[in-house]
Amino acid sequence: MPTDSTDPATWPHVLILGGGFGGMSTAQSLAGAPVRVTLVDRHNHHLFQPLLYQVATASLAAPSISAPLRQILRRQRHLTVLLDEVTGIDLAARRVTCDHGTLDYDLLVVATGATHAYFGHDDWAPFAPGLKTLDDAFLIRRRVLMAFEQAEREDDPALRQAWLNFVVVGGGSTGVELAGTLIELARHTLPREFRRSDPRQATVRLIESGPRLLPAFDPVLSDKARKQLEQLGVEVRTGDAVTAIDAEGVNIGEQRLAARTVLWAAGVAASPIGRLLGAPLDRAGRVQVQPDLTLPDHPEVFVIGDLAGLRQTHGKPVPGVAPAAKQMGQYVAAAIRSHLKGKHDAKPFRYRDDGSLATIGRMAAVAQFGRLKLSGLAAWTVWLLAHMAFLIGFRNRLVVMLDWAWAYWTHQRHARIIVGEDQRTDAD
Amino acid sequence: MPTDSTDPATWPHVLILGGGFGGMSTAQSLAGAPVRVTLVDRHNHHLFQPLLYQVATASLAAPSISAPLRQILRRQRHLTVLLDEVTGIDLAARRVTCDHGTLDYDLLVVATGATHAYFGHDDWAPFAPGLKTLDDAFLIRRRVLMAFEQAEREDDPALRQAWLNFVVVGGGSTGVELAGTLIELARHTLPREFRRSDPRQATVRLIESGPRLLPAFDPVLSDKARKQLEQLGVEVRTGDAVTAIDAEGVNIGEQRLAARTVLWAAGVAASPIGRLLGAPLDRAGRVQVQPDLTLPDHPEVFVIGDLAGLRQTHGKPVPGVAPAAKQMGQYVAAAIRSHLKGKHDAKPFRYRDDGSLATIGRMAAVAQFGRLKLSGLAAWTVWLLAHMAFLIGFRNRLVVMLDWAWAYWTHQRHARIIVGEDQRTDAD
Repeated sequence: MPTDSTDPATWPHVLILGGGFGGMSTAQSLAGAPVRVTLVDRHNHHLFQPLLYQVATASLAAPSISAPLRQILRRQRHLTVLLDEVTGIDLAARRVTCDHGTLDYDLLVVATGATHAYFGHDDWAPFAPGLKTLDDAFLIRRRVLMAFEQAEREDDPALRQAWLNFVVVGGGSTGVELAGTLIELARHTLPREFRRSDPRQATVRLIESGPRLLPAFDPVLSDKARKQLEQLGVEVRTGDAVTAIDAEGVNIGEQRLAARTVLWAAGVAASPIGRLLGAPLDRAGRVQVQPDLTLPDHPEVFVIGDLAGLRQTHGKPVPGVAPAAKQMGQYVAAAIRSHLKGKHDAKPFRYRDDGSLATIGRMAAVAQFGRLKLSGLAAWTVWLLAHMAFLIGFRNRLVVMLDWAWAYWTHQRHARIIVGEDQRTDAD
Repeated sequence: MPTDSTDPATWPHVLILGGGFGGMSTAQSLAGAPVRVTLVDRHNHHLFQPLLYQVATASLAAPSISAPLRQILRRQRHLTVLLDEVTGIDLAARRVTCDHGTLDYDLLVVATGATHAYFGHDDWAPFAPGLKTLDDAFLIRRRVLMAFEQAEREDDPALRQAWLNFVVVGGGSTGVELAGTLIELARHTLPREFRRSDPRQATVRLIESGPRLLPAFDPVLSDKARKQLEQLGVEVRTGDAVTAIDAEGVNIGEQRLAARTVLWAAGVAASPIGRLLGAPLDRAGRVQVQPDLTLPDHPEVFVIGDLAGLRQTHGKPVPGVAPAAKQMGQYVAAAIRSHLKGKHDAKPFRYRDDGSLATIGRMAAVAQFGRLKLSGLAAWTVWLLAHMAFLIGFRNRLVVMLDWAWAYWTHQRHARIIVGEDQRTDAD
């Protein structure tokens, strides 16, 4: 790909699909390289997804964890952001079709991430929303806050309790975080504010079909997480599967529970865009990529982030987490840069595990860095510092810190605002 | 109404409909009085409406100008907040019907405010949203930000310009504020971020059918406001009426303008709840109340805020502004207190004009306090201090101040996040 480095019109065109951690890090790592870049996303913003549960549970405002893609990337003169939805990919013609036009590329980076999956039970979706986008977070916030309002105006004790029973399905980080913040909302934030019902009567159940919470962590920390959640008042059930979900409640194994608010944190599936690539997918729908993150027979097409299915040298898959997506984006940008210089020495991508963190509540968390394992206040402090450091943009960091300090001292959540509509009419 | 002041169950029941400035100030001014209070609202939050246009134009996050009613009022032990929608009022039975039950009252305070009105052109509503609720603000924010996105992906120059033409109908404070912030968004915030279109090509027209902007202000200030807007780049047209609005544009008098984004700030009508009271209404649908804000023949029913139609001693109506609603709420609470003490010396309500403020842009505003008239930087400073002082809650004040300082120095708007859906499919 010989280019006249003085004329941008002759530079190769890198098309990036998706503005999450993977796409964004590719775009940013290409700054200054002699390429034209187009980044396409359905949303106008980059989202700091690890804190999305705090928007869902009314602790943070949406703009505190999101920023317009255009704004973040505005200084890259040869980069264009387009708000559009991908509908087709023609690998032979090197062309991507979107709702509002077609885009030709020289190099393609597919980073469209993952969505929540109901494993063949899509009929559960209306009753058990998952958490991937800001709109998901608003819906969950609305359901949770409305449940307490419904309880307040319900005279029948059994029906009232059904509004106060919360079930979180899935014991990974998101499930653990949701369950922990929900019980704190019920026990510490709301109690003095209701007159007819008592938010302290609320129950939060965390259901995990596997043998332990946080399967990505060391079993010692799974156990610590469970103890910390139980201390907060969450009922944790492992080895128990949810077998039915409807408007009135859930079946957990053989047992029926009347619960009007069920949240889904049980599974993710790769974005359907992966299927447009014609490459083999793994069970979770991830595209099986080469060690250099390219598509078989298509060295000009990279697949990264949650959509990429790749095994590490010891056989375990690269986890679908933000740091992995970021590292892949940096790797791809570096590969493109050396390709432009005529080098073809692509070392395989290696995932560097910088550690895992999951927060549970006030001063409760678990953290794992190699052989170092932390829980409780120590882990929580690390979590706090790490998230402050990674949040995009100075302004967000400052405001999020203020919001957290405020919430910490007062137990108040400043974003307890119900907006929008819910398709499920009984929740209105 | 003799009461046993030691037994709250025997205290008279004050039912307040609406948690805006009027209802909230009534409730707060009744703190400690021997009454049981119930406040009913359709939303779970009190809204600082004077800053709603800043949510609509992406400068502030929704939680910065709103707070849960329950949280604000949580310290009043004999006060209940209910999230519900009023469907009927039976004055004879002293009973209010809501979607979720009925409520009996001894004293009723109706403070349901106003909504936007299209003066017989309800078919314009889908194409020209008004600004009263947070959901309205999100819709406007979405339309405005999407218009620039549509322009970016539109190849036809005429169609692109139609996306960049903005029309604000109505030259009162809201119209002036919207027009001023829109032109700043186009000229200062967005320019560096688009590659195919140029946000500086955007036009903002402010259409007022009357002879001058800000009719509630002194004509000198109307003129200053116009000059300041024109200096920012807004095209101001007074004495010109909008005669048609559709998906593609507007007719202004005889002239047709292709404009995809039209905002409605032209008129308000009192809440339809007023009609349930069976009392005479004025042209704008306001309930004509007695000088003590009660309903004729119903000394137990008060109507306050934007819903109340009352003339001052010099003949001019009390304006539909936040300070008037607050003063009415305080007046009613005082009247209830003296009534409980057996006094019946109700002096008529007198509106105290503390001055008017309208902001236009960075360091541009107009202010009027009695005979003192300010414009430009001086008025803007007063506006800033006044709004900081009136914003509810310490946390909001601090964060709003930070957001403003940030926006001021960087020209950035931190809430440029498109969420939710738009019924108008072409804006998706």
